[in-house]
Amino acid sequence: MYTPEYLEQFTRKVFEKMGCSPEDAKMATDVFIAAELRGYSSHGMIRIKDYYQLWKANRINIKPNVRIVHESPSTAVVDGDGAIGMIAATKSMQIAIEKAKSAGTGWVSTKGSNHYGFAGYYSMMALKHDMIGISLTIANPLVAPTGSVEPMLGTNPISVSVPAGKYPPFVSDFSTTPIARGKLAIAAKKGEKIPLGWVQDANGMPSDDPDVITRGGSMVTLGGTIQHGSHKGYALSAIVDILSAVLSGANFGPFCPPSLAYLPVKEEKVGEGTGHFFGAMRIDGFQKPEEFKSQMDLWIETFRNAKPASDCERVLIPGDIEREKEERIRREGINVIEPVQKEVKEIADELGIDFDYQG
Amino acid sequence: MYTPEYLEQFTRKVFEKMGCSPEDAKMATDVFIAAELRGYSSHGMIRIKDYYQLWKANRINIKPNVRIVHESPSTAVVDGDGAIGMIAATKSMQIAIEKAKSAGTGWVSTKGSNHYGFAGYYSMMALKHDMIGISLTIANPLVAPTGSVEPMLGTNPISVSVPAGKYPPFVSDFSTTPIARGKLAIAAKKGEKIPLGWVQDANGMPSDDPDVITRGGSMVTLGGTIQHGSHKGYALSAIVDILSAVLSGANFGPFCPPSLAYLPVKEEKVGEGTGHFFGAMRIDGFQKPEEFKSQMDLWIETFRNAKPASDCERVLIPGDIEREKEERIRREGINVIEPVQKEVKEIADELGIDFDYQG
Repeated sequence: MYTPEYLEQFTRKVFEKMGCSPEDAKMATDVFIAAELRGYSSHGMIRIKDYYQLWKANRINIKPNVRIVHESPSTAVVDGDGAIGMIAATKSMQIAIEKAKSAGTGWVSTKGSNHYGFAGYYSMMALKHDMIGISLTIANPLVAPTGSVEPMLGTNPISVSVPAGKYPPFVSDFSTTPIARGKLAIAAKKGEKIPLGWVQDANGMPSDDPDVITRGGSMVTLGGTIQHGSHKGYALSAIVDILSAVLSGANFGPFCPPSLAYLPVKEEKVGEGTGHFFGAMRIDGFQKPEEFKSQMDLWIETFRNAKPASDCERVLIPGDIEREKEERIRREGINVIEPVQKEVKEIADELGIDFDYQG
Repeated sequence: MYTPEYLEQFTRKVFEKMGCSPEDAKMATDVFIAAELRGYSSHGMIRIKDYYQLWKANRINIKPNVRIVHESPSTAVVDGDGAIGMIAATKSMQIAIEKAKSAGTGWVSTKGSNHYGFAGYYSMMALKHDMIGISLTIANPLVAPTGSVEPMLGTNPISVSVPAGKYPPFVSDFSTTPIARGKLAIAAKKGEKIPLGWVQDANGMPSDDPDVITRGGSMVTLGGTIQHGSHKGYALSAIVDILSAVLSGANFGPFCPPSLAYLPVKEEKVGEGTGHFFGAMRIDGFQKPEEFKSQMDLWIETFRNAKPASDCERVLIPGDIEREKEERIRREGINVIEPVQKEVKEIADELGIDFDYQG
């Protein structure tokens, strides 16, 4: 087990050794540690290697000039200038929040970025400003549009965070597919079969093989089948793609630069880097914050008190599970699995810094 | 078969006879006729009776003062003042578009409204202004949150319309449930069973009975089961509910005033009327419209050319089906089924106007 403080200091050193400014190193590190604290280990320390490899391949800009290239009072396109995604994204969300302070809302579409970690980090940035936060991103093309067998879209997550009063905030953060990609990787590593309705084979037939996406198969969109509304998941994923990548001028859909070794890098580019979309809406652009928060408390109570199904103990509010995980992880420490410790230790050795390998 | 012009003139007369101003009557009528033209007969002439009954019950305000009650440069809360939903909604979307002209984007949360017809009508209003349009609404509480058996949410649709260049626009309009409620009504009328995964019975067990929602059952959210991501559909539906009804001060979730006879009217109110949410984003708040539209054309081509699954002829872009239906309906005329003709004829007789009953 590691303390958040230990992993935070270590990760900052990694990014500083790569050449990041202390401010940028902290900005990127904060997203990795927040992921570990919320129990998203798939977006935490395990991703350090991805960025280390991108850096070694000279595929990220370690001294980026992240900047607005087009704007109106409530909108902007931000050019991430090839930055680490967490840096481009944090700065973009800061711009959205600043615009919301004067215009009521702020909306930023970002190009020239890279993988930004977990979507919820950025939507939650709005909460302490009494704003609703929104965060969307494109991702590795692994998901087929309804009626197709060709992977064209990412798991394209949507995160919306809403402040409440006496209760913790509403924090939703979900992919527009039945499951996040991480679940396939875990099942594949364990050699387990998966339920039908998560992936299809190269012919579009349902498959229970978690590894089929590495052999011409694809994930399906939320809904699973046309009969159960997969065209709605396709539309949602397409909306995320258009707002994040077409509106900013990034590489949309199948052109999203892959961060996975088994996905071929397309020679053809239709824009610059990876794209994200951020929104911040000031509550008092709509009504008095105290009144809104008191209604959100009533909303949360109303849904918490919904009658549970016979096989469920309670009805959850989006964000409950992650918050409870975070309380436990803050008490017990962050568990980094041994293979990830090993990867991180190797990186630390190459960079000439210490890492407490616990095995 | 009826011509759109005939039904348009007739519907205007109905609303004028109820006491609407000529402008308001036209505004409401346009949404009914647009629904018929897109093939959404579930939101067309069949709904005239709903409004006629609301009017007779003195439950709508026929001379409403639809107005902004709170605003910032890019936001507003609009009070629909008990208006016909189509009037409150059209005026709200007009306000969003006007705000976008000066602030880059415009966002309106509307309270004190009623059923607004089909969501896509309002998102499409943005297209001719070179804006992306967004339209959300709450609806009759028929849908259970994940893990619950209690209907707390509506089918809460999401519509996003995006302009393109040489191709028709991207127009998505979908409920956050596997199916729209209309499919249950049709199956029930035909005495047919429905696929598992659309509804659950009063104990939370999957049901193939389309009528179960009138006997303590409920619809499920997009995703269908937890294993297949129903908690994501729940989060989506909750976001629509919060933006439409908590942010405006309308009756959220289970308190949404029902427009269906078999749903009990709750005595308890938590706000004013029904709520919607509208957004308009000026393309040139982000980039040059010609460049964006040319990229959208490339996006549309890319997805149209995705390899189809073996059982599909082609890959569709959201809006394709409705646009093709509209082309056919404009050629062939609008088919109003006999039971609806009969209802409408009775209303016409009571109001002392003519209706061409064709049988």
